[in-house]
Amino acid sequence: MFADVYDVIVVGGGHAGAEAAAAAANMGSRTLLVTMNLQTIGQMSCNPAMGGIAKGQIVREIDALGGYSGIITDKSAIQFKMLNKSKGPAMWSPRAQNDRMRFAEEWRLALERTPNCDFYQEMVQGVLIEGGTVVGVRTSLGIDIKGRSVVLTNGTFLNGLIHIGDKQFGGGRAGERAATGITEQLSDIGFECGRMKTGTPPRVDGRSLDYSKMIVQPGDDRPEKFSYLETPILTEQRDCYMSHTSALVHDLLREGFDRSPMFNGRIKSIGPRYCPSIEDKINRFADKEAHQLFVEPEGWHTVEVYVNGFSTSLPEDVQFRALKSVRGFENVKFFRPGYAIEYDYFPPTQLKHTLETKLVDNLYFAGQINGTTGYEEAASQGLMAGINAHLKLKGEDPFVLKRDEAYIGVLIDDLITKGTEEPYRMFTSRAEYRTLLRQDNADIRLTPKGYRIGLATEERLRRMEVKKEKSKVFVDFFKETSVLPDDINPILESVDSALVKQSDKMFKVFSRPEVTMEHMLQLQPVATFVAENDLDWEVLEQTEVQVKYSGYIAKEKLNADKLNRLENVKIPEGFDYSKLKSLSFEAREKLKTIQPITISQASRISGVSPADISVLLVYLGR
Amino acid sequence: MFADVYDVIVVGGGHAGAEAAAAAANMGSRTLLVTMNLQTIGQMSCNPAMGGIAKGQIVREIDALGGYSGIITDKSAIQFKMLNKSKGPAMWSPRAQNDRMRFAEEWRLALERTPNCDFYQEMVQGVLIEGGTVVGVRTSLGIDIKGRSVVLTNGTFLNGLIHIGDKQFGGGRAGERAATGITEQLSDIGFECGRMKTGTPPRVDGRSLDYSKMIVQPGDDRPEKFSYLETPILTEQRDCYMSHTSALVHDLLREGFDRSPMFNGRIKSIGPRYCPSIEDKINRFADKEAHQLFVEPEGWHTVEVYVNGFSTSLPEDVQFRALKSVRGFENVKFFRPGYAIEYDYFPPTQLKHTLETKLVDNLYFAGQINGTTGYEEAASQGLMAGINAHLKLKGEDPFVLKRDEAYIGVLIDDLITKGTEEPYRMFTSRAEYRTLLRQDNADIRLTPKGYRIGLATEERLRRMEVKKEKSKVFVDFFKETSVLPDDINPILESVDSALVKQSDKMFKVFSRPEVTMEHMLQLQPVATFVAENDLDWEVLEQTEVQVKYSGYIAKEKLNADKLNRLENVKIPEGFDYSKLKSLSFEAREKLKTIQPITISQASRISGVSPADISVLLVYLGR
Repeated sequence: MFADVYDVIVVGGGHAGAEAAAAAANMGSRTLLVTMNLQTIGQMSCNPAMGGIAKGQIVREIDALGGYSGIITDKSAIQFKMLNKSKGPAMWSPRAQNDRMRFAEEWRLALERTPNCDFYQEMVQGVLIEGGTVVGVRTSLGIDIKGRSVVLTNGTFLNGLIHIGDKQFGGGRAGERAATGITEQLSDIGFECGRMKTGTPPRVDGRSLDYSKMIVQPGDDRPEKFSYLETPILTEQRDCYMSHTSALVHDLLREGFDRSPMFNGRIKSIGPRYCPSIEDKINRFADKEAHQLFVEPEGWHTVEVYVNGFSTSLPEDVQFRALKSVRGFENVKFFRPGYAIEYDYFPPTQLKHTLETKLVDNLYFAGQINGTTGYEEAASQGLMAGINAHLKLKGEDPFVLKRDEAYIGVLIDDLITKGTEEPYRMFTSRAEYRTLLRQDNADIRLTPKGYRIGLATEERLRRMEVKKEKSKVFVDFFKETSVLPDDINPILESVDSALVKQSDKMFKVFSRPEVTMEHMLQLQPVATFVAENDLDWEVLEQTEVQVKYSGYIAKEKLNADKLNRLENVKIPEGFDYSKLKSLSFEAREKLKTIQPITISQASRISGVSPADISVLLVYLGR
Repeated sequence: MFADVYDVIVVGGGHAGAEAAAAAANMGSRTLLVTMNLQTIGQMSCNPAMGGIAKGQIVREIDALGGYSGIITDKSAIQFKMLNKSKGPAMWSPRAQNDRMRFAEEWRLALERTPNCDFYQEMVQGVLIEGGTVVGVRTSLGIDIKGRSVVLTNGTFLNGLIHIGDKQFGGGRAGERAATGITEQLSDIGFECGRMKTGTPPRVDGRSLDYSKMIVQPGDDRPEKFSYLETPILTEQRDCYMSHTSALVHDLLREGFDRSPMFNGRIKSIGPRYCPSIEDKINRFADKEAHQLFVEPEGWHTVEVYVNGFSTSLPEDVQFRALKSVRGFENVKFFRPGYAIEYDYFPPTQLKHTLETKLVDNLYFAGQINGTTGYEEAASQGLMAGINAHLKLKGEDPFVLKRDEAYIGVLIDDLITKGTEEPYRMFTSRAEYRTLLRQDNADIRLTPKGYRIGLATEERLRRMEVKKEKSKVFVDFFKETSVLPDDINPILESVDSALVKQSDKMFKVFSRPEVTMEHMLQLQPVATFVAENDLDWEVLEQTEVQVKYSGYIAKEKLNADKLNRLENVKIPEGFDYSKLKSLSFEAREKLKTIQPITISQASRISGVSPADISVLLVYLGR
């Protein structure tokens, strides 16, 4: 049935699997996506939203490299917000609410339009391995599908166990069955594996809610978007709403604590710290009287609503009684209760920077199987695994992003160097150089790289170059053009900024924090320049960032370059740490396991001290 | 969680469940639809098409009564054909190809827009019964949901077992889990149950097919539609294609016969006779060298393709090798193999005409659980069960359609009177009065009834009345208006019809089989009349039928009325057949089980002879 050998077989069709398949296929690999259900490709298992702080930057990075998540998000968005717009540009984070059905449909159709990407619906029960190299997968029907590399993206499906109160049943997601066989096989051949836990809130009927009692959360007045390509910008948006829990709600929830699988010891695995269940929140922050709940529509037309902030595995009757006591939810009707799910993952220190496993050649892991949480984290790993699977088959250099190049670089380096004991999610604070890793410049940072490896298209590169060039010209215009006090002072006065006494360069005035691009556009020469040069909002945004933050950016770049020198001290592959007697015992063990490829990576391993690094540097002749 | 008592709880969200929920809710019952997966409401489990011979008439009937299937079909159609247009109007049968994703989405949104219709996602494991009356359902989480009546529409999910070659695994559909508990419970309280079998063909990648080697099957030049309301008419359509099996294909299939669950005794239950698997076809018609295959796109944009005519449960490698040998399929890639599925059903002789069970009050069955096959058969049963569940709660008369009123009447009467040993599908030949039960007059037949019970809207009734009145006026126009030989003879000549020598009534000429409405429209007075009276295609069609077939229709009406006299001889409820010693033993047993409500129904029970009917008639004083 599968007579030919695929280049890349991707197992799973979620965010990681879809990006992996798209990347490998678009680069030219003959790719097969195998999933238990072809109708759930690109399914948003949890909240109907993409992006957010640090996560929005990742989606922009995926897009800059030539991945699909940004495009799909734009096509299915129902609301857009640029979070943290009042802070510096390093913190600006795009976030979209999505139509859940449309999102999945767009993913499916995007993959179908991808040449080289085939599909097959069945459960994969194991991988085929010959002489330490993966050579395909075996399905539950016993079909062997040959592949030169395999990317596993099993999400929460591996031995998935769903908990609601004191009930538990096997399943990969509500209403879907679990996957079996892979964990057992990989454990047998030496992979370390563990259990993690995540959860999801109830879905409710929007018709049963009283939105007049909640606080409306509209999208941005002038919504932007994710993709650097020409995707649609929202002209209409759907509102979200906010409500709050209360002491009463907390009391009602506590009534179920004795039947909570989280508290009675039934669930032992660790859940996502920054996406805790509501019972976790009231348990850990017992003095807090109220928690925010965000009420998110699931699409343009559906009445289904996602209750963000109310993730729970308490018994369904407890969930119901408590939610009913939330303002606006007095008559709530459940579509389905929240639940917790435990699933198998493989500690990611077993991976190389390419997401290839150290134990089995050409076998890659991406997404929740690596202990991460979040659509964006999963999608970016899928993209990188797909890219590297392809490159390795072509005998080309691995594609690894450094920590000062992309959040994706930070993510993967953290995973494989430090591992993770709890579901890993991205934050801006995880990046040393977040002023460099902005959402506005992901294309400038990454599109040339994406183009070089054959993933980002010519058009993408050209668009980036035009934007970059136009922004440069516009910055130069501000540097070269003067403004008269009579022209600028009314504006300065309006924002309580010190007036100027004589003509000055526009750049200088514009550099003031309280002066924005919108103010500058009120000046006739600026408006004329924008019109004559046909500058769009992306160029305006980029120019504003360059003018106002160029100092910070240059400084951080300098720091990064300095630290990168350590990054350039490579440790030879298979380096024998046992001969370095002066290394601490712990450092030696960790270094053997992780096998860092640079001194810099070695320094990030917990348990490796500066003294150990000195020993290494001396030995390596530095 | 479900503190209040629902009027009607519908279990299952397929064609039957969706219509049942819509009908009950639209009539004013507080309705809950419970399904294992809210994302698969209105899922087309098998072919992406609605209607066809006799089935198309059923969809029109559902629409005329105020059901949704016609509207959903129109909104998601990608191709429309009026089958049998060359035959008499009793045979005209509308059929549409549908976009599978869009069909399900439209159903879900239609139900969400229905006031009184709530939703809940979970598996129902049993019904709650008190004193012989159903009072709710129990879910797999152990939640008791109270309801005054329950409609079970479990499709193929009850203990569903999927077969592919010699492999078998539990499941309600490919990739979905089976449902358990209900059969066991109902058996325990005395329901008779059995197993049936159905199957589905492989889904394949349209990009791998060579359509140039197949025969194109376009839609109608002037497509019509299903709903009598204002739904869209297709302006663009997608083509289907036809190919054929061959002796070689048959030989390749036979290679898998020893591993076929159909032939090696593993599957014992009976499948749909008129929708046989390909192995069944080549087995039963061994001398036939080729079978037709219809290649049907699964939607507007998807590349997935349904291989109609190639249903099979042979081993997947056999399926693949054989299909590869079909013209145009040389490079075929499978999305998923075909399979057979066995599931539980309850012989429908255990039901009343309302689809309520005889054993448990207020418990209704609809769809495959009654041993039927087909979306349309299921949908119409769901509609009737939903209507009757509502009416009974309101203390109103049952809503039963007679055999001369609707295919739906034939269907239900056949089921409950004769039962079925194999999946029952509708044919025009099952109806005694098929000239009356046409697709063009379902609104005239049924909309007044649907309106009377509070389901069909005022608008629907008005539209029907306008159409009926306009058609009558137009027929009268043909009866009253004469045409001159000079005007009509060129037309008659063009269709080789005998010329007229003198002026004659248009009605008479139009009655000739070879003269169509299109010809008549070439006459200036006709065209003027149509324009002045703003007559649409529906009125034109109806008028043409009335003019050309009024004789046949009147004759059949007379027959029906005659036979209906027997239908009017009611048998008292709980009639004691044991006291009629002159009944044959078999007749007495059957009559006791079926409990027919009229002499006419009694006469249709197999094993009840004309002699038995005479005995009954004598006893009842006729």
